[in-house]
Amino acid sequence: MKGENPNPSPRSGAAAELLCGVNAKALLDSVDAFLFDCDGVIWKGDKLIDGVSQTLDLLRSKGKKLVFVTNNSTKSRAQYANKFRSLGLSVTQDEIFSSSFAAAMYLKVNHFPPNKKEDGEKRVQLKSSCFFEHDKNVGAVVVGLDPDINYYKLQYGTLCIRENPGCLFIATNCDSVGHMTDLQEWPGAGCMVGAICGSTGREPIVVGKPSTFMMEFLLQKFHMSPSRMCMVGDRLDTDILFGQNAGCKTLLVLSGVTTESILGDSSNSIQPDYYTSKVSDILKLLGE
Amino acid sequence: MKGENPNPSPRSGAAAELLCGVNAKALLDSVDAFLFDCDGVIWKGDKLIDGVSQTLDLLRSKGKKLVFVTNNSTKSRAQYANKFRSLGLSVTQDEIFSSSFAAAMYLKVNHFPPNKKEDGEKRVQLKSSCFFEHDKNVGAVVVGLDPDINYYKLQYGTLCIRENPGCLFIATNCDSVGHMTDLQEWPGAGCMVGAICGSTGREPIVVGKPSTFMMEFLLQKFHMSPSRMCMVGDRLDTDILFGQNAGCKTLLVLSGVTTESILGDSSNSIQPDYYTSKVSDILKLLGE
Repeated sequence: MKGENPNPSPRSGAAAELLCGVNAKALLDSVDAFLFDCDGVIWKGDKLIDGVSQTLDLLRSKGKKLVFVTNNSTKSRAQYANKFRSLGLSVTQDEIFSSSFAAAMYLKVNHFPPNKKEDGEKRVQLKSSCFFEHDKNVGAVVVGLDPDINYYKLQYGTLCIRENPGCLFIATNCDSVGHMTDLQEWPGAGCMVGAICGSTGREPIVVGKPSTFMMEFLLQKFHMSPSRMCMVGDRLDTDILFGQNAGCKTLLVLSGVTTESILGDSSNSIQPDYYTSKVSDILKLLGE
Repeated sequence: MKGENPNPSPRSGAAAELLCGVNAKALLDSVDAFLFDCDGVIWKGDKLIDGVSQTLDLLRSKGKKLVFVTNNSTKSRAQYANKFRSLGLSVTQDEIFSSSFAAAMYLKVNHFPPNKKEDGEKRVQLKSSCFFEHDKNVGAVVVGLDPDINYYKLQYGTLCIRENPGCLFIATNCDSVGHMTDLQEWPGAGCMVGAICGSTGREPIVVGKPSTFMMEFLLQKFHMSPSRMCMVGDRLDTDILFGQNAGCKTLLVLSGVTTESILGDSSNSIQPDYYTSKVSDILKLLGE
């Protein structure tokens, strides 16, 4: 994966520490920025998680930068800012780094013209005389979570990758699970990416977490050392691994997909620096 | 993969021999049965490949058993027999071994009740209050080529595999390419299988080629040694590998997806015993 730090955090491997009053204070003193995943950390579906608003206010009042780093590719930065606003949180567009933004940045730094938009409602005609035409000028296929996945799109993307010379295959992320509703889990972008891997025999360039591609833009914006940042997330193989790959401190919250038993299971090799049940524990532990 | 022969054919690695009069005669004398792939060997889409009918007649007249082994899972054995008949070939149902038959046999030998049929036209409702129900009694998800792939089916299969204890994930095959029309290639079963791998983090049990699962049923039926069989196919990583895994002789035909330059490329490690341009070369080389 592009952009991964060859020197993982020295803590990886050692068991995570439960967040307490003492280490929460030390963590706060040792970092200048908190990077938050959103689904399972800030909100679940359309519901804000308890105490998040007050916790973010506290961190800002202590001079910490707040950044939101999400693998969700179904919204633009502007749509994300609207979602924060609708939940009563004041977050600006340039504090948001989504995998759709990362894909756009990847194309920009590689000098690609803006991509064409496909029509999600198109259906394929499988008559024996029908020849499926695709645009020979498409130079990149970007695959993210798409509940409108169908054979037309799969054939279109496959033909571009197989037949257009040098065509890139970019994945916003490879998460197996997507948060389409708050009641249960749904197939994530890893499903659509897996389909294109299966039809092309190619592996994608991943721009979302745990790839640290987004970190480059974040550093350009905020001018601080990754070692003075703490990544806060609910997923070990994306959020925590991203933080470790980038050289940040890491805090796992149990308000999303990871349970304490998954964290402690012998099959899990990814250990954050700290873990706690939810973001607002910080507020409580600091006695604010 | 289940059922693979740990002792690959001694010829694998050595360069394939071009079929000629001398080795064609020797091949014919050394085998009692020919196993044919269909797409790209017997037909292309809905068109019979030149000389196939006369070649099959010759082989039968010389007392050879003919068997048809296909990864195409979109037809039953009866539908396959109809396709042969419509192209003027007399082939009986029990000479046909398809990956859909293999999947059914896999379930049968593992004592599964017949599977429910899903409605390909169902679409998913993604309202935040909607809970997607799945049948907790489904014990196996069988994935094959499906041009009606959609998010509903992906969620259904994913939930069964993730949440039903012991639920099997069976792939009819993992071919990247499917022959939906004769004018171009389309995403094959590998696309749908990749999607479910991506959403479940699980690897499938593959029952089609190159897995030799089907060979067990073929041997029960025909009572002959695999070393007295020749697998004829157009794909290296399915047909020829299947033949080699099973201990058969192998003949690659260039009338399908493999070109002579792919065969000879340094990146290709799969070498059949023999290769020729098309099945009817046998007829010509034997001077019949």
